[in-house]
Amino acid sequence: MGAAISRRSLLAGGAALPVAAAVPGRQAVADAVAGQAATGKVAAAAGTGDAVEPFHGPHQAGIATVPQAHAVFLGLDLLPGTGKEAVVRLMQLLTDDARRLTQGRPALADTEPELAVSPARLTVTFGFGPGLFAAAGVTSPVRALPAFETDRLQDRWSGGDLLVQLCADDPMTVAHALRMVVKDARAFAKVRWSQRGFRRAAGTQAPGTTQRNLMGQLDGTVNPSNLDRSVWLSDGPEGMRGGTTMVLRRIRMKLEQWDAADRSAREFTIGRRLDTGAPLTGRNEHDEPDLNRLNQLGFPVIAEFAHIRRARAADVGQRILRRPYNYDEPVGADGTADSGLIFVSYQADIDRQFVPVQRRLAEGDLLNEWITPIGSAVFAIPPGCAPEGWIGDRLLTA
Amino acid sequence: MGAAISRRSLLAGGAALPVAAAVPGRQAVADAVAGQAATGKVAAAAGTGDAVEPFHGPHQAGIATVPQAHAVFLGLDLLPGTGKEAVVRLMQLLTDDARRLTQGRPALADTEPELAVSPARLTVTFGFGPGLFAAAGVTSPVRALPAFETDRLQDRWSGGDLLVQLCADDPMTVAHALRMVVKDARAFAKVRWSQRGFRRAAGTQAPGTTQRNLMGQLDGTVNPSNLDRSVWLSDGPEGMRGGTTMVLRRIRMKLEQWDAADRSAREFTIGRRLDTGAPLTGRNEHDEPDLNRLNQLGFPVIAEFAHIRRARAADVGQRILRRPYNYDEPVGADGTADSGLIFVSYQADIDRQFVPVQRRLAEGDLLNEWITPIGSAVFAIPPGCAPEGWIGDRLLTA
Repeated sequence: MGAAISRRSLLAGGAALPVAAAVPGRQAVADAVAGQAATGKVAAAAGTGDAVEPFHGPHQAGIATVPQAHAVFLGLDLLPGTGKEAVVRLMQLLTDDARRLTQGRPALADTEPELAVSPARLTVTFGFGPGLFAAAGVTSPVRALPAFETDRLQDRWSGGDLLVQLCADDPMTVAHALRMVVKDARAFAKVRWSQRGFRRAAGTQAPGTTQRNLMGQLDGTVNPSNLDRSVWLSDGPEGMRGGTTMVLRRIRMKLEQWDAADRSAREFTIGRRLDTGAPLTGRNEHDEPDLNRLNQLGFPVIAEFAHIRRARAADVGQRILRRPYNYDEPVGADGTADSGLIFVSYQADIDRQFVPVQRRLAEGDLLNEWITPIGSAVFAIPPGCAPEGWIGDRLLTA
Repeated sequence: MGAAISRRSLLAGGAALPVAAAVPGRQAVADAVAGQAATGKVAAAAGTGDAVEPFHGPHQAGIATVPQAHAVFLGLDLLPGTGKEAVVRLMQLLTDDARRLTQGRPALADTEPELAVSPARLTVTFGFGPGLFAAAGVTSPVRALPAFETDRLQDRWSGGDLLVQLCADDPMTVAHALRMVVKDARAFAKVRWSQRGFRRAAGTQAPGTTQRNLMGQLDGTVNPSNLDRSVWLSDGPEGMRGGTTMVLRRIRMKLEQWDAADRSAREFTIGRRLDTGAPLTGRNEHDEPDLNRLNQLGFPVIAEFAHIRRARAADVGQRILRRPYNYDEPVGADGTADSGLIFVSYQADIDRQFVPVQRRLAEGDLLNEWITPIGSAVFAIPPGCAPEGWIGDRLLTA
């Protein structure tokens, strides 16, 4: 895919910038729904609530999209005996839901249409796991990750035939869209897991700045700038071109132990300052780390097993696009936190881009003392679809 | 408490209007924390994130405060053997945390100070259950509610010696404040329950408009206008004056069954239109319902057992202040929702204001078909405190 096309694609997909257009015909929809003139109060939502992300385009939304504040990741397993024809029907149904809900319109069988009128940049992104391809009799472009030394994976957070990623700046919008998707998928699939995540609220953080995770670190500083090179597929099966792959890992943080580490130990572990996120060899967050610089004792300033050294892709073109969310489940009776990161990465090639990085981290990353991967899943993310199409159409009907 | 005083009190407590002042000295705090000059990026939060609610005042914040988008309600049980002296130390500690965190400053023992710089209208509100008064040897101004016919209460959502209600417009702010409170309470108490709730995101709904719950209804239309009459205590024990009482009920919605009810059945059940929230006898949400109006067949337009008729306090001065949040926990494997309402009300007198309404609802409310109370707790909410004081000081050291 050439650079000219890619720039157009990004814009068409609403990927490059947050889109804050008012929803066209929103009042008309509300009127139609109600069957009578709506009062001003019904349509009071403004700003954050009215913003829409385009649904159609060469890529699915929710990947290059500026991350919304709230997300639910839903892992579904197809019911036994579900074949290609049923998968096609399911994807047609869910695509239609997504097409409507993301634009602030109720789904077809929406029993709470008033909850649909505030899209708040809702995106609904679909991913196919190896099991879906097997059910449909199509060769899977993805396979489960190899085992890593540090993994303590739990079935309840791993795998899944179909991923639905729902993101919006309003938690109510996410809740309503989730319910519609779950109801429409019910005849075809059961829920394997759902993971709820959050980032800073819309309007609290300057666009383009990096979020902090619950350990207090800036998280996601190094992301690729050229998505055509490292994220979007331009070769391989025709039905995946314009798509990508997703790795989802649930990473629990041992916050009680992290509390015991002082600031210098934390900075040594990461290789960055906690306050600015600057590498220990630099002054600003986006300064290139100097991995060769030594301190006065002759040791590397950024330690041999510091997180940023181990996580670094030697080839800049091989960087993965990270789009993580925080999770924070109810604390235990003794106050122990159940918190961590829903690590989400998109990359053209899992084996070439994600696996080498994860292998280096599993082999030796100081941060492993305080984090444990407890869930893992991979999905093929089909490209976007045309207005008359549905997600996966070129892949499943080839 | 006279009207002149009350108006001043409301303003002093930051209760009447959302406050959007920038946090004073925020950059200075960040600098001090970091022990070095902070870059512009650290202080990038703006708007929603910078807004603060005053902590000190005649009333605690978080009650008359315009509801924030996110809440956690934390129910703690004092450890066996915890006496008055320990309770005093606990409240001094937690008050200090709240005083700092609500103003965008790290708590004293904050291990992630960078997560504290975006207060996002954080309020931290404390409530004392009957068990805390017993432990401190002070007569309790509240007692458990009587049993209601429709209750299906679960221990895991009920009771508690100490309530900490944390509300903010940013979920990250809530998560960080919650963790500080849990860590500082750990030597004195264990976690009995925590309940996470949400409303529409800040900026998606016009101020002063009513939120919708997950059944799609406008929820909380009728709230008292004079809080001095119906919420704040002006007599009784001196240490409670300026305080109030809180009822917290976890109400599960049977959304699967609700789906089966069509719009007219739903409107008949509630007594209001779904779209506008107007009573079935009116045109606008805030129109007074005409409970005597009959339809052409001679039946009441607002049915005998419609929710708004049963929930209505005959004496306007006896209305309770509702400040509910939605909850939406992970769905079951078969797609069954675990959703509902964290019903929260504040009133001067539970027995005179809350109990009669709840009794009428339990005896006959069409809505009971679709909702079930599964948790219940009551708390005395002490008044606010002076800058040198702590929450509960006049109550526990009288």
